[in-house]
Amino acid sequence: MADQNFPEPQGGGSLIIAWQIKGKKVLVIGGGEVAAGRILHLLNADALITVICPPSGLNPEVKHRITKNQVFHIPRNFHPSDLSDPSSISMVLVAIDDPAASTLIYKLCQKHRIPANIADVPPECDFYFGSVHRDGPLQIMVSTNGKGPRIASMIRKFIASKLPSNAGRAIESVGELRVKLRKIAPEQKEGPKRMGWMKDVSDKYSWEEMCEMTEEDMDNLLRFYAAGTVPEFKELRGMRAGAKEEDKVPYTFDGSFGFSVGA
Amino acid sequence: MADQNFPEPQGGGSLIIAWQIKGKKVLVIGGGEVAAGRILHLLNADALITVICPPSGLNPEVKHRITKNQVFHIPRNFHPSDLSDPSSISMVLVAIDDPAASTLIYKLCQKHRIPANIADVPPECDFYFGSVHRDGPLQIMVSTNGKGPRIASMIRKFIASKLPSNAGRAIESVGELRVKLRKIAPEQKEGPKRMGWMKDVSDKYSWEEMCEMTEEDMDNLLRFYAAGTVPEFKELRGMRAGAKEEDKVPYTFDGSFGFSVGA
Repeated sequence: MADQNFPEPQGGGSLIIAWQIKGKKVLVIGGGEVAAGRILHLLNADALITVICPPSGLNPEVKHRITKNQVFHIPRNFHPSDLSDPSSISMVLVAIDDPAASTLIYKLCQKHRIPANIADVPPECDFYFGSVHRDGPLQIMVSTNGKGPRIASMIRKFIASKLPSNAGRAIESVGELRVKLRKIAPEQKEGPKRMGWMKDVSDKYSWEEMCEMTEEDMDNLLRFYAAGTVPEFKELRGMRAGAKEEDKVPYTFDGSFGFSVGA
Repeated sequence: MADQNFPEPQGGGSLIIAWQIKGKKVLVIGGGEVAAGRILHLLNADALITVICPPSGLNPEVKHRITKNQVFHIPRNFHPSDLSDPSSISMVLVAIDDPAASTLIYKLCQKHRIPANIADVPPECDFYFGSVHRDGPLQIMVSTNGKGPRIASMIRKFIASKLPSNAGRAIESVGELRVKLRKIAPEQKEGPKRMGWMKDVSDKYSWEEMCEMTEEDMDNLLRFYAAGTVPEFKELRGMRAGAKEEDKVPYTFDGSFGFSVGA
């Protein structure tokens, strides 16, 4: 049956998403170790962070973030008036040792439809955090859906140890190539051709080759777009201005593909 | 300087979170290939899904989900009245070929504070999706922050190929062990001891050993909790009812740890 080609859903997971919090206001209530971890996640995503915590509750890392003006600090406990302009607040993260206050904050957030996470209280979380590996534009998040935070961290380290050292660089290259391609073939009707050619590029080159790709290589590669072909990576090496004579591949210059880029 | 011990933020990323959408209502507007992918993500997280799309726009996978009653179907185009009870809707995902309608829907969602994703229109996304590896409770999400969706998928497959085949099983074991531990040592004041012992367990055993752990092994392991020790895994093997005589480790039965569990 054709039906059986469709994947069977596996319930019990989370919907893992990359939230776009850049330039948006986030309240972090509490200033201990857990808050420090949340703040780093938020800074890595360019959020505008306000930490609400009495000075006595700040751990050294949170103090450091305040001193460096990486976060704004309100030096007292949470007060419901902190949510008096709910439309200005995109997210609330709570990490305090006060279950009653935590529950109150969570209920206020629900009322105002502000996504919230109360640390260590799963039923009062619209979302959980996981262990994140970061390498430039690459982010890999490991979640055990609350079953084993320490294992999540082990798995993250295991993955980091297996990844090529410049996996992030390879992604940057593909991103740059896509931007350059849109410049030389900007028309909307070119969309399918652009996507198809980018797919061919991804299929043809290994990660290691992608990581090696220079600006010059990209410019040379783009000359193949009009003909819709993708050369071997060694051909790109041969086309470099400083390439040794023996590395130059003859058909790079044989005119067998058109230079009608942008036509 | 002590300051330098604190990690330097690396902006430009997303806040990757595990959204808890179980039992919550999600609108999927559109019924093509992209919608089919979103629906599978949502089903894996136990969301209550309503697909809004004219019958002519449904691809075979989405039709299959409707036939199997995995999603509810409204057989027409989106109408603003679909958001007339915004507090009942937790998320909106749009995947239609109509930029004007998409923008209208996004603006309505913003007004009602409903998180939304308009496929292929990054400025109209509160969040992005990534490529997800799933193995029971384990979810690993790869995001390239929009720079290379195909590379994200390559990296996900690469990671899947490197992970031990039963990584998910190991996480289940840890989760089960934690639940059993809370049963035998339920008191709140035991919290730090419980956490410390679970950490010792995670540190002592390899993944492979975790994956091998049976119910019987766990019950035997828990007998060491009162004394705050963690035996070698081979000792647990030796304690199994069916263990060969030569595998039985003498000190398993030497009484050097107390059986005061729950005391």
